[in-house]
Amino acid sequence: MFKRLFFLALISFNSYADLRATGDLGVVIERAEGSALIINHSQNTTLAKIKDLGDLSHASVVFSRDQRYAFIFGRDGGLTKIDLLKDKVAKRVIQAGNSIGGAISQDGQFIAVSNYTPGGIKIFSTESLELVADVPAEYGDKKLSKVVGLVDAPKHHFIFSLFDAGEIWVVNIKNPEKPIIKKFKNSGKQPYDALLSPDGRYYIAGLFGEQGLALLDLWNVDQGVKRILPDYGKKDEKLPVYKMPHLEGWAMAGDFMLIPAMGQHEVLVIDKRQWTLVKRIPVAGQPVFVMAQPDGRQVWVNFAFPDNQQLQVIDLKNLSIIKSLTPGKAVLHMEFTPRGEHVWVSIRDDNQLVIYDTENFKEIKRLPANKPSGIFFSSRAYKMGL
Amino acid sequence: MFKRLFFLALISFNSYADLRATGDLGVVIERAEGSALIINHSQNTTLAKIKDLGDLSHASVVFSRDQRYAFIFGRDGGLTKIDLLKDKVAKRVIQAGNSIGGAISQDGQFIAVSNYTPGGIKIFSTESLELVADVPAEYGDKKLSKVVGLVDAPKHHFIFSLFDAGEIWVVNIKNPEKPIIKKFKNSGKQPYDALLSPDGRYYIAGLFGEQGLALLDLWNVDQGVKRILPDYGKKDEKLPVYKMPHLEGWAMAGDFMLIPAMGQHEVLVIDKRQWTLVKRIPVAGQPVFVMAQPDGRQVWVNFAFPDNQQLQVIDLKNLSIIKSLTPGKAVLHMEFTPRGEHVWVSIRDDNQLVIYDTENFKEIKRLPANKPSGIFFSSRAYKMGL
Repeated sequence: MFKRLFFLALISFNSYADLRATGDLGVVIERAEGSALIINHSQNTTLAKIKDLGDLSHASVVFSRDQRYAFIFGRDGGLTKIDLLKDKVAKRVIQAGNSIGGAISQDGQFIAVSNYTPGGIKIFSTESLELVADVPAEYGDKKLSKVVGLVDAPKHHFIFSLFDAGEIWVVNIKNPEKPIIKKFKNSGKQPYDALLSPDGRYYIAGLFGEQGLALLDLWNVDQGVKRILPDYGKKDEKLPVYKMPHLEGWAMAGDFMLIPAMGQHEVLVIDKRQWTLVKRIPVAGQPVFVMAQPDGRQVWVNFAFPDNQQLQVIDLKNLSIIKSLTPGKAVLHMEFTPRGEHVWVSIRDDNQLVIYDTENFKEIKRLPANKPSGIFFSSRAYKMGL
Repeated sequence: MFKRLFFLALISFNSYADLRATGDLGVVIERAEGSALIINHSQNTTLAKIKDLGDLSHASVVFSRDQRYAFIFGRDGGLTKIDLLKDKVAKRVIQAGNSIGGAISQDGQFIAVSNYTPGGIKIFSTESLELVADVPAEYGDKKLSKVVGLVDAPKHHFIFSLFDAGEIWVVNIKNPEKPIIKKFKNSGKQPYDALLSPDGRYYIAGLFGEQGLALLDLWNVDQGVKRILPDYGKKDEKLPVYKMPHLEGWAMAGDFMLIPAMGQHEVLVIDKRQWTLVKRIPVAGQPVFVMAQPDGRQVWVNFAFPDNQQLQVIDLKNLSIIKSLTPGKAVLHMEFTPRGEHVWVSIRDDNQLVIYDTENFKEIKRLPANKPSGIFFSSRAYKMGL
């Protein structure tokens, strides 16, 4: 009996000793295995591995407003709610046939998922993962469009783009069972991704089918969608684009927006007051992610194949490259610690995560990971438009 | 024996059931009683009350990078580390005779406290609260200045102002035992508070002894301290200033900085590219805190006595007031939820906290609190310059 008592006391003690805050946690996608690592970015350690998450070949993650749960959007339409305190799956549903990403509402109550098949978005309760609303992306003669560039926006809004229809839709889910949809037609040919400015004001979609970008000013929606940067895009039909740049990784810093020049070895610097081109910065390859450090001074860039072993750092003071690094084979993603002192980098073909000190570019640590791709820290819980 | 077994099992169960994420927690100062409430801003509830924290008549709070701990800086020089998962004091030291505020370093390893008596800052380990460095604010003939406007800044820096000396000091604590101090003399007469721009670039000190503001561009420290807004400040010697405005509450939003006009019933709108005055917005009283909603669209303003029963909301689109509220007697502080859907307001003389929906200005809930003053949410863990 004493043994059992001791055992129970031990359980009790352990569960107490395991108390875990959630401010410095993160999730790393292991794309090939369909698994995810829970990491701690204060200790630079892996805490747990969660398996059986389906096809994570193009996965993204958002976090509940309390940071306890990570929601993983899988390519196969799987939506998985991970409990970061218990290191396990809290709930998992297959919500569609082919999914591309998701977002969480400003108040944290709803998750929206954007789907290719069937084209549209579905809205779920974050609590139960039960379906709350289904918004098919219908256009023309009852056709369904692939949905891309889904973001949350202030005041109960989700915004997304219809790739096939060339439309931007703004959905108000204040009454989630009766979403109010505002459609902006003729927004541009084949929008392929989009971003929301960090202040929640501007929704900008990249266009694959034509040059320029589509801009919706959410403070002035009545003005409709405008075209900006008319020279931006894929000019030469024969120019190969090895990987579509991610707009979510575009850098908004001070007065500038830094974006990848599509198919070219350049980062473009845009003055975001007039949406005009300020400078073209030559870089080591076709940029994929162009990400601003949280302290606003530097922008980090990774590249498409065959230059994806490299990383470059742009100093915003002089708008020039101050550092080039070669972390390893196939640098896929970067994530900064919330205040920017470190950056985590996933190196798929070396099966590693590398952590750098952003002040001196020194390597702090390497951690093993199986074909890591996206890295997502719980600090995203507080950010709009992800 | 079975009873004891059951009891232990119960403890075990409870400690598990109590698992608590830290992303939606906050601390509310109860200034008269020297206590603090731990609150949850998803549930809009009070979780615990922590007593015996000394003189909290002018208290502020920062959070550890994992959001597990809140560090409370008391007026009496008390520095208390609260464990937000165990609802108790983890450690408490009396570090000086008269303290005014504090900051936590970018990497979360160090806490700095600014002191009036003896004038200077002291730097502590966040882990142990052991003293790591003592930086007396010595000037002139071995005199010690009161220290104000202490902030953390990127890359191992703390920055603060010397009220009596009229100096701004930038301290690098990369080697915390040998801090490197850069002193900017003649920075302006009697700096009384300061702020860091959210991107970590500009340190701006308000001046009590003369007009204008002192600006240090941290990207160009060699250019030294400049004076901006030369007409800003207390023009009329006889004009009473009922409460010194807090610079930490100045609003940076888009291209604008909104600041309280000292001693006047106005909020000033500054173009932060040229540091020029764009507009004066008449408001209901002498503004104290002028705070931008995280979604950047609105700015909330509270007031000094005798107008401190009011709150006003400025819309940034038209730079005009769109709402006036009268929450209760002595509105002291406001804190937005991380993505801005709610704002919490402390009403000292009504012994209440009021929670508003920022979309429609409706009251969501009132919670009891004993003479509440500052409200601090754990999302501050990720912010620079607090």
